Amino acid sequence: MAERTYTNAQLSQLEKRFRTNFINSLTGFKSVALIGSQSTEGITNLAVFSQIIHVGANPPLIGILFRPHTVPRHTLQNILDTKNFSINHIRKDFVEKAHHTSARWDISEFEGAKLTPAYIDDFSAPFVSEASIKMGLTYVEHYTLQSNETIFLVGEIQKIVLPENCIATDGFINLVGAGTMTCSGLDAYHEVQNPVRLTYAKPNQPVKKI
Amino acid sequence: MAERTYTNAQLSQLEKRFRTNFINSLTGFKSVALIGSQSTEGITNLAVFSQIIHVGANPPLIGILFRPHTVPRHTLQNILDTKNFSINHIRKDFVEKAHHTSARWDISEFEGAKLTPAYIDDFSAPFVSEASIKMGLTYVEHYTLQSNETIFLVGEIQKIVLPENCIATDGFINLVGAGTMTCSGLDAYHEVQNPVRLTYAKPNQPVKKI
Repeated sequence: MAERTYTNAQLSQLEKRFRTNFINSLTGFKSVALIGSQSTEGITNLAVFSQIIHVGANPPLIGILFRPHTVPRHTLQNILDTKNFSINHIRKDFVEKAHHTSARWDISEFEGAKLTPAYIDDFSAPFVSEASIKMGLTYVEHYTLQSNETIFLVGEIQKIVLPENCIATDGFINLVGAGTMTCSGLDAYHEVQNPVRLTYAKPNQPVKKI
Repeated sequence: MAERTYTNAQLSQLEKRFRTNFINSLTGFKSVALIGSQSTEGITNLAVFSQIIHVGANPPLIGILFRPHTVPRHTLQNILDTKNFSINHIRKDFVEKAHHTSARWDISEFEGAKLTPAYIDDFSAPFVSEASIKMGLTYVEHYTLQSNETIFLVGEIQKIVLPENCIATDGFINLVGAGTMTCSGLDAYHEVQNPVRLTYAKPNQPVKKI
């Protein structure tokens, strides 16, 4: 298989759109979800995010990276203002609608992309009714990265709603069964195959399938 | 489909291992890769990481979240000491070896898990010869999160090696073709299906497949 190499200097000389697609693909398959929020004026917002990572299990924390705060970022502003938001996994049966939220709508993305807001408990942020795995989070802290002014925000999970039959006896969630998708690059959405689960690794013992 | 809900208070009362599996599954499918590094004494290290996110395309930046610095974290220490490291995508044909690096080896994980170090240019960090997509990065900055003492570290891509036939004309990388896997929870590795790529979204125009 022929290999191709790129240096940092070559990357900086690539055509902008090629570079954006290319570098966005390099981290491999990504978490992708819809983040729901609401402004202090009561306007709902829904946006696709793929920079989402696990931060900790106890307390249950999730991190999200936001693009620079230099142009209007409704989701980020809403979270900073209201201190709560929802994360909703994307399923194949509404992936086009999910992607459609990324258009520059003058109206709420729920209305524009024809997705249904759902309200749970006292969260002001709307959840996505169509999603089978949904979480409600509260703001904890954020950092503005010196390197490129992106904002890393940490939220704490306050509520989880998910299909009961996707929870294994050891707590593992069968995301394939729940229909959760992954993404790559900027615009590619993938279904995922059933996993191999591997045993806790020990030196000098072969890793086995669970 | 029966739904199950969990509150923050219920999560804190779960058995520890159940909670860890459960919360680690909630962010959806994750990037997973082997990070190669070398100590100032010349000892190589290789470790599986699944908290990896895209930070920016220009400059090309990747973020990694490390667990708290309270117990020895060889990868983090090596990066802080030597300022360079490698990220190597995991393929199915060596996924058991990749997982085996997570055992508590007294020797280098390369030797223990029977993976082959490769050296590129002047990086002191070893790459994984078996990986088809490999990157060399240099340290940029890091933040210790107040919420749980995890460390968010940003590196800049200096070198990329990948199969030429996986690069689309618009820069998108065919990760399925390259054999890159995704992971969920703590121990599940998945192959991924070919994607649907969707057009740049505009209001009042249906999203189409590319």
